[in-house]
Amino acid sequence: MGNQRTDVEDLGEFGLIDFLTKNIEIQNAETILGVGDDAAVMDYYGKQTVASTDMLVEGVHFDLSYAPLKHLGYKAVIVNLSDIYAMNAEPQQILVSIAVSNRFSVEALHELYEGMYLACKLYNVDLVGGDTTSSNSGLVISVTVLGSVTPDKFIQRSTAKKGNLLCVSGDLGAAYIGLQLLEREKRIFLENPDVQPDLGKQTYPLERFLKPEARRDIVKFLAEHEITPTAMMDVSDGISSDVRHICDSSKLGCTIYEDRLPVDEQTKKMALDFNIGYTICALQGGEDYELLFTISQDDYDKITISEQISVIGHMTDADDGVQLITSSGEKHKLKRLGWDSFKQD
Amino acid sequence: MGNQRTDVEDLGEFGLIDFLTKNIEIQNAETILGVGDDAAVMDYYGKQTVASTDMLVEGVHFDLSYAPLKHLGYKAVIVNLSDIYAMNAEPQQILVSIAVSNRFSVEALHELYEGMYLACKLYNVDLVGGDTTSSNSGLVISVTVLGSVTPDKFIQRSTAKKGNLLCVSGDLGAAYIGLQLLEREKRIFLENPDVQPDLGKQTYPLERFLKPEARRDIVKFLAEHEITPTAMMDVSDGISSDVRHICDSSKLGCTIYEDRLPVDEQTKKMALDFNIGYTICALQGGEDYELLFTISQDDYDKITISEQISVIGHMTDADDGVQLITSSGEKHKLKRLGWDSFKQD
Repeated sequence: MGNQRTDVEDLGEFGLIDFLTKNIEIQNAETILGVGDDAAVMDYYGKQTVASTDMLVEGVHFDLSYAPLKHLGYKAVIVNLSDIYAMNAEPQQILVSIAVSNRFSVEALHELYEGMYLACKLYNVDLVGGDTTSSNSGLVISVTVLGSVTPDKFIQRSTAKKGNLLCVSGDLGAAYIGLQLLEREKRIFLENPDVQPDLGKQTYPLERFLKPEARRDIVKFLAEHEITPTAMMDVSDGISSDVRHICDSSKLGCTIYEDRLPVDEQTKKMALDFNIGYTICALQGGEDYELLFTISQDDYDKITISEQISVIGHMTDADDGVQLITSSGEKHKLKRLGWDSFKQD
Repeated sequence: MGNQRTDVEDLGEFGLIDFLTKNIEIQNAETILGVGDDAAVMDYYGKQTVASTDMLVEGVHFDLSYAPLKHLGYKAVIVNLSDIYAMNAEPQQILVSIAVSNRFSVEALHELYEGMYLACKLYNVDLVGGDTTSSNSGLVISVTVLGSVTPDKFIQRSTAKKGNLLCVSGDLGAAYIGLQLLEREKRIFLENPDVQPDLGKQTYPLERFLKPEARRDIVKFLAEHEITPTAMMDVSDGISSDVRHICDSSKLGCTIYEDRLPVDEQTKKMALDFNIGYTICALQGGEDYELLFTISQDDYDKITISEQISVIGHMTDADDGVQLITSSGEKHKLKRLGWDSFKQD
């Protein structure tokens, strides 16, 4: 769209909504009525509806000086889809509300929505509603996602059993390292705008932070191999914090083995550059959007078929808390140290 | 809770969520899983799900210098429920996300949620999920509501027919006058903090602005009397703007009669004090949260049973646009003049 700039004010709220939603193609037969009325209508005969919502706030969850708007839109959808997969459900519709100040042009918002629609397309999800309003300061994005699940097949956090194996998909800590890299280059740029950013060849951590994916493939693998996790959630705040939700609600503890934590080679190398232990990244770095789940020991053989799943520990008595067995065999109690938007850095 | 002040920071995000949701009582059998997991689970065998979302932004939709937090929470829920009733559906669950700066204490947020829970209780709705995050500036509230409707009984905006009668529930313009009153008293207070606010005895407009209700009773009346509106929506931006959605999507025009517009006596009196024509308030004042709908002429006798419903006009050809017949019999074409958060005052 070149350098054209249309002010949001010129379009008005309804013009903006029309502009942002005109290319929607409804993908699910269940979506009877989408954008353009007071509410969306969905048909769910014989299925259960699953709904979740996440809000992203400028200056808290993202920094527009290095997060391209299209990636931001993509990520805003993905983090919501991840919650639905974590229920063992299939996302089907999203509702998106945004508050924007007049420093955003219509073209900028178009970029944002292009990223959302791309995620919708790839994950077969319909954007069925939302709200668009002005803001006196930063950008706020609120996404609600609805999904469906075969009756009684949804998986909670509270149903892990003692002796269950603790598993995680993919790898951990890369998004945290990606963020460190972007923050470093931003500091350098602010000190000397003539220096070109050195993002290196280690693009994996950047991609993990800027454009994460949701683990639909893992939910599919589990179904195909008839593995029903006893508890499941997604990794958003770092597993040392997230696993505590499973422990607390299941009234259990757990033991995690440091040498079982899946960490990508690029992440390890860059963690070294930043002088951060990669185990810390894996345990405390948030925004991995992997699935963290528990399975019966009987399912161990089946789970090892997937190279995308690591068994990282097992569930213990509540009194044991969350323990880490280090590579050298030492035992540490882990404290709750995940990311919390209310804590000051 | 007296003057105790707990910083949000001290509780952390999960502590805050626990604190804010600990008193929830699930009301609907369909609500299988509520707050505390990645997503909420609902059961809708043989029903259709309806979902809607609205975002309220401090400084745009509300001013905390005169909107008590409890009322604000109540209103944030009501404006969403109103969207569901406007579909001829029954609201059942809400998801609430808030972004708050550290100038809000836990007690203040408790007040906000108390208002939300009160609305939930009165309208038989469950709060089933949400997100709570920090903000660098103002308060942002995003509510998503899910409801159910008997299959194919939902009512769209696009299905009005030429010759249909245009109806509205309750009365119009009071919320706008309530806002003018609050703005006037705020200006006086800022100029001279010693002057006590003079909110007078005309409490109805204030209540309409600060603590509106959603018209569940109208949906019930229509069902009981077997009146199926041909199109329906709620009045949020002012009927001169809102009716255009019915006209545009139904490819029709409409004629509205000034002397049929329902305006409360207190509203008329105060409009006079403010030197604003009350017809302007009724047409352009937003936030009434009444239902605006069209019915077949055959239903005229049945609709007159309700004193809460006024027939204000009828649907015409698209070429006629939105016309007002004044009390003196003159004909005016109405321009789109409703409230738009992107327009500067």
